[in-house]
Amino acid sequence: MTAAPAISPTGSRVGGFPVVGMVGGGQLARMTAPAAAALGVGLRVLSDSAHASAARVVADLVVGDERGLADVRRFAAGCDVVTFDHEHVPGEILQALEADGHVLRPGAGALAYAQDKLAMRRRLSAAGLPCPAWRAPASAADLPDSGTALGWPLVLKTSRGGYDGRGVWTVTAADDPAGGQPFRAGVPVLAEERVDFARELSAVVARSPHGQAVAYPVVESVQRDGICVEVVAPAPGLSDALAESAQRLALQVAAELDVVGLLAVELFETTGGGLLVNELAMRPHNSGHWSIDGAVTSQFENHLRAVLDLPLGSPRSRATWTVMANVLGIDLAETYPAYRHVLARDPALKLQWYGKAVHPGRKLGHVTAYGADLDDVRARVRNAAAYLAGAIDE
Amino acid sequence: MTAAPAISPTGSRVGGFPVVGMVGGGQLARMTAPAAAALGVGLRVLSDSAHASAARVVADLVVGDERGLADVRRFAAGCDVVTFDHEHVPGEILQALEADGHVLRPGAGALAYAQDKLAMRRRLSAAGLPCPAWRAPASAADLPDSGTALGWPLVLKTSRGGYDGRGVWTVTAADDPAGGQPFRAGVPVLAEERVDFARELSAVVARSPHGQAVAYPVVESVQRDGICVEVVAPAPGLSDALAESAQRLALQVAAELDVVGLLAVELFETTGGGLLVNELAMRPHNSGHWSIDGAVTSQFENHLRAVLDLPLGSPRSRATWTVMANVLGIDLAETYPAYRHVLARDPALKLQWYGKAVHPGRKLGHVTAYGADLDDVRARVRNAAAYLAGAIDE
Repeated sequence: MTAAPAISPTGSRVGGFPVVGMVGGGQLARMTAPAAAALGVGLRVLSDSAHASAARVVADLVVGDERGLADVRRFAAGCDVVTFDHEHVPGEILQALEADGHVLRPGAGALAYAQDKLAMRRRLSAAGLPCPAWRAPASAADLPDSGTALGWPLVLKTSRGGYDGRGVWTVTAADDPAGGQPFRAGVPVLAEERVDFARELSAVVARSPHGQAVAYPVVESVQRDGICVEVVAPAPGLSDALAESAQRLALQVAAELDVVGLLAVELFETTGGGLLVNELAMRPHNSGHWSIDGAVTSQFENHLRAVLDLPLGSPRSRATWTVMANVLGIDLAETYPAYRHVLARDPALKLQWYGKAVHPGRKLGHVTAYGADLDDVRARVRNAAAYLAGAIDE
Repeated sequence: MTAAPAISPTGSRVGGFPVVGMVGGGQLARMTAPAAAALGVGLRVLSDSAHASAARVVADLVVGDERGLADVRRFAAGCDVVTFDHEHVPGEILQALEADGHVLRPGAGALAYAQDKLAMRRRLSAAGLPCPAWRAPASAADLPDSGTALGWPLVLKTSRGGYDGRGVWTVTAADDPAGGQPFRAGVPVLAEERVDFARELSAVVARSPHGQAVAYPVVESVQRDGICVEVVAPAPGLSDALAESAQRLALQVAAELDVVGLLAVELFETTGGGLLVNELAMRPHNSGHWSIDGAVTSQFENHLRAVLDLPLGSPRSRATWTVMANVLGIDLAETYPAYRHVLARDPALKLQWYGKAVHPGRKLGHVTAYGADLDDVRARVRNAAAYLAGAIDE
């Protein structure tokens, strides 16, 4: 493990408390802000727009190009540690910042594996960690060989730039015309077996520079069209043994890649009862949003504690069941009246609204409920999310 | 009850969500910011300093004189509703804003009773609500009569401007030289009997313009030198009947004074098992801070929901016991190392740090713990608060 540079808070801060810089002005930075305020640490956000989700709620905002070295340097100059609400900062910029002496958490070396799915597969496979079978076809001409090795259909992914189901294709046969599409992006392509999975799980852990780590309860993540729509904590019916395996696997990945901060390991639970690593994210993650209301310490607070090398908080659940549902936008005009209705209907519902303009399919916010009866809790969040999205109430 | 003006969100906001303006940049506004972000409503803060507690964490900050009409008008122009993190805005300014057509919640009429203890005593006594026996001595020459009526010692309070034990004197006899001091402030003086109380309680309620109200569990508030140091939710050993009486009393006060938003009613539980109203605050209150971690809906969120006429959230406790302790500052240099120690010692401890420069006796933040065993929970917060304040760990 790489030795982590020590943080030296400057004397200019109140009580000597440090400043965390977060690159990216999305909802993850927005939800980090309350955790920073509670901890009393500074939070500076770099956003490409003053109207982005986090830009609307943070005091120390730098508007600039997240992919431009000059802007990122100007931003980082005021920070004790720099972290990220997405994976889109180019590797050259990350390396330049580290060469400048800035403390990146996670570091450029770790982030490379969150940015490049092919590099991630190579590294995890080499470390003996369970992944779907995969190949690296150089062009569409290699697909028949990939299909022979992995079976049809194949899942093709651009190694960089995909999220929420973008950059993923399912190819049914060697002559499927979809097979040529991934190669047009001009980045390497990863071919994977299509895993016969029972469901998707997510194991979220936080890890400190000095190696302290905590593991959140393993959750079930329900996807629709490649987008997470619902998370149930803990994953219903998951055996203690498999839950522990998933947590241990996530901790191994974190240690192997020297991740500092949050790491979300998205997993397939196979029909045979095994686990395979699907995707990684080295930041607070949609599958951890339940922790704001459902855990002793939210993933956002533990991300900050980890990147600041502060002792980590308890990741324990506070309720028997916590369910989170994303609200995907449909109809702008109906939002505020629908929101009033939803608050009136369920006084114990918790809401996080991201302050974004509505586009169809865009994540506008999420709702969370908790309690002792899973069916009841799930019905409450599904109802609220559907109503907020403009669908008819059940 | 006065009819409340309707809120008309402007079209310029994301999704038509309204903007709440809060006058005052202290820790109450700071802790309101996360609730506003979660609800997706705008929060604009008027603060007399860009370095105040809330000023450090809100995006929409107006720096200006909270007691100057021009500045307050400039601030209010961007808000759908104006509320307060303290009681110090002069009544003339409140009335001028209402005359301009601004929506103040609570309104100027209600706030007058939070600003003037003598007016509050007169109004509550006239409404038959239980208060300590009181008189309104015009000068020190009236003190012997007050003492005869109320018994010695007397408690004298300036009707305006006091908080955290300031503006309060105990006068032991007619010839006690302290008796002259309150009259030097040039504001009316309230004389009260010194109540023989068993302990202090606080009943916090939220009330909407249309009259919906919720009552938080009644808490015990432990004071030292007139400053709240610890709050236990719910108040240990309080009978259901007395708890219900306290909640009903607070709801009556809220309705009687037409309070909109949070109302904290500080109560004496007398040695005879009765309740007397001590003080009122029409805003989130120190005795409600436990609700951030301990209740389904925090007092800050319910204050926003109330002033926006949104349906109120459940005030239910999440744990058997929740205890909050204030951290009163002693030693600046020791704060950050002490803080690391405290986080390491108790991973389930919750902390709210106010981002203020340290002065002896100033509230720097608070710590909260919850659980099933009151002695354990109380020991955890006392230990943490003492350590953070620079005292020796027990």
